[in-house]
Amino acid sequence: MFEIAELGQTLKKSAYLKQIPDLRTQLLLTQQQLKTCDFPVIILISGVDGGGKGEIINLLNEWLDARYLQTTAFDEPSDEERERPKFWRFWRTLPPKGSIGIYVGSWYSEPLSLRVYDKIDDNRLQVELNHINETERLLIDDGALIIKCWLHLKKETQKDRIKTLAKNPDTDWQVTERDKKHLKMYDDFIRVAEQALTETSTGIAPWLIVDGSDRRYSSFTVGQHILHRIQHHIDARAAQSAQETQNNGTLPINNLQKSLLDALDLSLKTDKKTYNEKLAHYQGKLSRLTRYARQQKRSSILVFEGMDAAGKGGAIRRLIHAMDARNCRVIPTAAPSDEERAQHYLWRFWRHIPRAGKVTLYDRSWYGRVLVERVEDFASHEEWMRAYAEIVNFEQALTDHGIILLKFWLHIDKDEQLRRFKEREQISYKQFKITEEDYRNREKWDDYKHAVNEMITRTSTLEAPWLLVEGNDKKYARIKILKAFCERLESALDSQN
Amino acid sequence: MFEIAELGQTLKKSAYLKQIPDLRTQLLLTQQQLKTCDFPVIILISGVDGGGKGEIINLLNEWLDARYLQTTAFDEPSDEERERPKFWRFWRTLPPKGSIGIYVGSWYSEPLSLRVYDKIDDNRLQVELNHINETERLLIDDGALIIKCWLHLKKETQKDRIKTLAKNPDTDWQVTERDKKHLKMYDDFIRVAEQALTETSTGIAPWLIVDGSDRRYSSFTVGQHILHRIQHHIDARAAQSAQETQNNGTLPINNLQKSLLDALDLSLKTDKKTYNEKLAHYQGKLSRLTRYARQQKRSSILVFEGMDAAGKGGAIRRLIHAMDARNCRVIPTAAPSDEERAQHYLWRFWRHIPRAGKVTLYDRSWYGRVLVERVEDFASHEEWMRAYAEIVNFEQALTDHGIILLKFWLHIDKDEQLRRFKEREQISYKQFKITEEDYRNREKWDDYKHAVNEMITRTSTLEAPWLLVEGNDKKYARIKILKAFCERLESALDSQN
Repeated sequence: MFEIAELGQTLKKSAYLKQIPDLRTQLLLTQQQLKTCDFPVIILISGVDGGGKGEIINLLNEWLDARYLQTTAFDEPSDEERERPKFWRFWRTLPPKGSIGIYVGSWYSEPLSLRVYDKIDDNRLQVELNHINETERLLIDDGALIIKCWLHLKKETQKDRIKTLAKNPDTDWQVTERDKKHLKMYDDFIRVAEQALTETSTGIAPWLIVDGSDRRYSSFTVGQHILHRIQHHIDARAAQSAQETQNNGTLPINNLQKSLLDALDLSLKTDKKTYNEKLAHYQGKLSRLTRYARQQKRSSILVFEGMDAAGKGGAIRRLIHAMDARNCRVIPTAAPSDEERAQHYLWRFWRHIPRAGKVTLYDRSWYGRVLVERVEDFASHEEWMRAYAEIVNFEQALTDHGIILLKFWLHIDKDEQLRRFKEREQISYKQFKITEEDYRNREKWDDYKHAVNEMITRTSTLEAPWLLVEGNDKKYARIKILKAFCERLESALDSQN
Repeated sequence: MFEIAELGQTLKKSAYLKQIPDLRTQLLLTQQQLKTCDFPVIILISGVDGGGKGEIINLLNEWLDARYLQTTAFDEPSDEERERPKFWRFWRTLPPKGSIGIYVGSWYSEPLSLRVYDKIDDNRLQVELNHINETERLLIDDGALIIKCWLHLKKETQKDRIKTLAKNPDTDWQVTERDKKHLKMYDDFIRVAEQALTETSTGIAPWLIVDGSDRRYSSFTVGQHILHRIQHHIDARAAQSAQETQNNGTLPINNLQKSLLDALDLSLKTDKKTYNEKLAHYQGKLSRLTRYARQQKRSSILVFEGMDAAGKGGAIRRLIHAMDARNCRVIPTAAPSDEERAQHYLWRFWRHIPRAGKVTLYDRSWYGRVLVERVEDFASHEEWMRAYAEIVNFEQALTDHGIILLKFWLHIDKDEQLRRFKEREQISYKQFKITEEDYRNREKWDDYKHAVNEMITRTSTLEAPWLLVEGNDKKYARIKILKAFCERLESALDSQN
């Protein structure tokens, strides 16, 4: 696949100098226009050593308005990054909508290099590439434009290039022992790169392969490619959003299907005495287990979803009572901040992924996408439909990293909800919890139930199953949740021994 | 000073159980009210080992709504934290306005422990405590409420407490070798703590010293203290803001004082040939020097201020042209995001402090506080007046950490500005740079000049001096800036050898 980049294409200095001013003006104007658009631009600059990645990145920073772009090179991960799933470091640096992020190497560097050094086999490389494709698709589905450029060099050219650099005292610092070693591995590297590029040159995010041997040619080509892709994307998005407004309709609800929620036995109860005993028992146990988990650097993430007044807050309080407040954190999911709104909807959950050994409890979560956003029409049919797969992939990244993930659906029936609303209105420090909106949501009870049913069906996986909690009796629900977390911790910590 | 906490105060179980429900209700209601207030609450829980810090923090998490508070314990700093000034890790965890942050140990832990272990002397401790006082004052001046609680134990009580914990298999994990060692150092610790508490028990952020020997007494006392302080602060802030609106006036400008800006020779010029030679020379030099700086892990921060159209962007572009885009970042200072608005005005600059060896260029900066915010009346007279000292302290934290800090004021005269405005309006890709607002700002030219003059006078320090740049000739200005950065890097890197 690299043949086209070995033809030795060049651009004369006179032609280059003639075309560059216009390219720069166009880039600046387009970047201006981009600022008002609702998508980010992610530019990946990869390729062989000596292919000119650094030079092109410097040029792009000069041609574009550097204040509205962000260049990221990933060196060794920091300890804060190592303690989280691999993609966390990419998520934290993603450019917000309307701006440009340039990545050197990016998410491709590590898997490629691991494969070249034979630290992983072809199958594992394949798995890594699938994760990359999933992540790229997720961002693109959300509107992002991903531009991937690969700078190629023929074997002889790479050798010459590195020799020339090493000879010049002004540039010899650029040539490291690693480069010399890589030179010997050229054939291996090209083989792996070809596999990776083939697998990830998708219709939505194709690779541009550029001959890096002539700097003028390659930088002009990359610059022009970026310009055209952005211009095209701005137009395409505008056309698309006009179309989407027309198609946005909801599917009829299939009421014949029996709901998983209806199958719950909401009469389950725990009497006060048993409750007090079990509460003390499981809280003691949880206290010990979370301490061990901290020592073993195993993190946990707990997700709480449920109808309004289902008892999420009370259950969370019983859990944190048993844990060391220094190691756990509750994240309430309210309206997103404007920094959060300028990113993919999963971004604001990624940013709170705990460090090693800590516990994060999400009071409502990313499932809002397929619950409230679906029912209230905040997300289009396409958006929430694809969210199931996006969420499953996201959660897989967490569990693959060794994070213990539990998801609770707290369920109550409609009568019990009304009873609790009325009760809250009577208690001074609970009044703030009841608003008009709660009553409005209540009217959409069946829509929510349908959405929950579909959510559970589509996102319960072996590693991250949903636990349905019969919530009409608060005591029963709290014990069930405490017990489930204890058992999950116990088996996870055991299985490590 | 700890005598009062050695009287052996206790609270009977019956009295405790009677009073707690009311305290909890009040805390929840007050926390509700706080959500709409424009200040954060910072609670520090410190004290001797075994004093019950962990228990009180857990209780506070239970009593308050844990979703709207954040508990932070500082273990070993991460590498991302170590590469920045000491206070960076506190800034990044500060609670936003309307919410509560609880800190265990906090900024007091390190200096206290260094002194007890004799790693620093009394003078150095004093300097550290001054920094703490400055930081607390800065937050308080911005409206923050800081509540500092110290849990004390008598020597014998501490000994007993640790013995009891060690004997019980359920609690023995809490007793570390460090604790046993600390027990022997009790007298030293108390002496140092007394000094620290005396120095930092300021009128605006006094310490509450609590006897930690009876858990019911200490937790109730701390809980009640927090409640009262928050309630009082809510009332005081409301009263204060009513008053402030009346006092908000501007001082008359003293036009007799000769301006530093008038003393600049704006006729200074560099001809094209000299410019091209020097540009190439200093860019080459800068490229080498920033590479060395990266190797030596010395970071740089460059601040660019100047009248509109003074040439900041062009100067920045010439600098980044010479640097590796992977190691430098331009931060434009536009309107703050809502997450930024919910914090102290310095917060949004702290968050971009570079990691070791990197360069951050601020295109406009924290000096907006004493320039645009002053002239446009966005900040009150008190706010911008105290900002000078706040900024000097902030910059001192940067330079103390070894960061190279340069501040450029680019100056042009009024005629030159008009010429550039007109010119920009003619060039397609520069049109977006000119708005109505630019012409409006122009009308306040003298006010800005006066503010600049005062800013330079008050914030030029030996370690972080202002460099005034004659900007009517862009070529002259760019060379002056490039040269200054090179020389500063050269001497800073030399002085390390």
